Amino acid sequence: MEIPVIRDILEESNARARENRELFDRHGVFVVNMMSSPGSGKTSILMKTIPLLRQQGVSCAVIEGDITTSIDSQRLQPLGIPVVQANTEPFGGDCHVGSHLVQGALKYLDLHAIKLLFIENIGNLVCPAEFYLGEDCKVVVLSLTEGEDKPLKYPLMFRECRLCLLSKIDLSPYLDIKIGELQSNIYSVNGKMEIIPLSAKSGDGISIWVDWLLSQMNRKT
Amino acid sequence: MEIPVIRDILEESNARARENRELFDRHGVFVVNMMSSPGSGKTSILMKTIPLLRQQGVSCAVIEGDITTSIDSQRLQPLGIPVVQANTEPFGGDCHVGSHLVQGALKYLDLHAIKLLFIENIGNLVCPAEFYLGEDCKVVVLSLTEGEDKPLKYPLMFRECRLCLLSKIDLSPYLDIKIGELQSNIYSVNGKMEIIPLSAKSGDGISIWVDWLLSQMNRKT
Repeated sequence: MEIPVIRDILEESNARARENRELFDRHGVFVVNMMSSPGSGKTSILMKTIPLLRQQGVSCAVIEGDITTSIDSQRLQPLGIPVVQANTEPFGGDCHVGSHLVQGALKYLDLHAIKLLFIENIGNLVCPAEFYLGEDCKVVVLSLTEGEDKPLKYPLMFRECRLCLLSKIDLSPYLDIKIGELQSNIYSVNGKMEIIPLSAKSGDGISIWVDWLLSQMNRKT
Repeated sequence: MEIPVIRDILEESNARARENRELFDRHGVFVVNMMSSPGSGKTSILMKTIPLLRQQGVSCAVIEGDITTSIDSQRLQPLGIPVVQANTEPFGGDCHVGSHLVQGALKYLDLHAIKLLFIENIGNLVCPAEFYLGEDCKVVVLSLTEGEDKPLKYPLMFRECRLCLLSKIDLSPYLDIKIGELQSNIYSVNGKMEIIPLSAKSGDGISIWVDWLLSQMNRKT
């Protein structure tokens, strides 16, 4: 008699992620998994970032993770790039983008025409950090409005990411945030984290983040 | 031969929550489950709220949910009230406070001496909304910095809560947020939501929120 085996959910997730990775490698697509709390500015940052990348000859696409709406995809429409909305509601309202969802989204993208793919994850500083989607690197966006202590309170997220974008720096004159303390807290959970302060509103720091992306892509090829 | 039954996780969770509820009822404790994104200001709001409640003769306590630190409990220490730190890391780093965790925390509280218990949930706008802990009401804190679209993107949270505290209103002159649109979005997912704008920094709105809590407690008795 055969013994029924329920495959470990993480094993299944990683199998899909490795299939995604194989596709990305075959087409030479660099993939960035962007994560953050709700409302930290991921979409606003992409809206400022992608036109600068295009000026550098880098064709972009975005997989927009969300539980239930397509608000962020609509915001990206004016950029004229391929965007796929990936909602988790049909999958039980998951609180993170899963590798199966990315796999489903890839059917709608022509990977031959894409050099850089952003996966904008669901706004959540906990669960998305646990899952490999096949990406080249994970980036966390942390708004200055969220306080100094978040790296300590959500350590897995800050351990998993290669880069932290400190967003909304235009608001720093109006906040009590101690940026030095915030940076120390980041380094205390991830000593090799790179940090780029920026503001989608003022545009400050966006070109530094674009250069960082280009250097990561070049380092790979 | 006996058939092994794995109890549904939600059934188990609700069983613990009902036990908590029974304890609260027996001691006449009103319980508020406060939820939000990371960094929306839950702890800062409690620091301003609890002294005003004490002036009204309401003795408070807090169960501080967190994945791994006791930062928020330490912040509340100067209030001189009972605080129990409830970390999910020993339970696998859960992204929400569970009813079993509340049950564990209650062993450290003298419920005879408490009229109002706050459960400060883990900063997460998704998963905490799914779980009943035995509370009287759920309250969501939404910072103005998070944008107008959050009620649409995290509808379960806004459907489950009775009150939405719009926090950090001191920052509104420096944000592009359309508060009317934000309110419409809240009402579109929950037509009976009550909304109180406030700022822990300036103190604006805190007394309205205190009055709201007192009215909820009075309505019950």
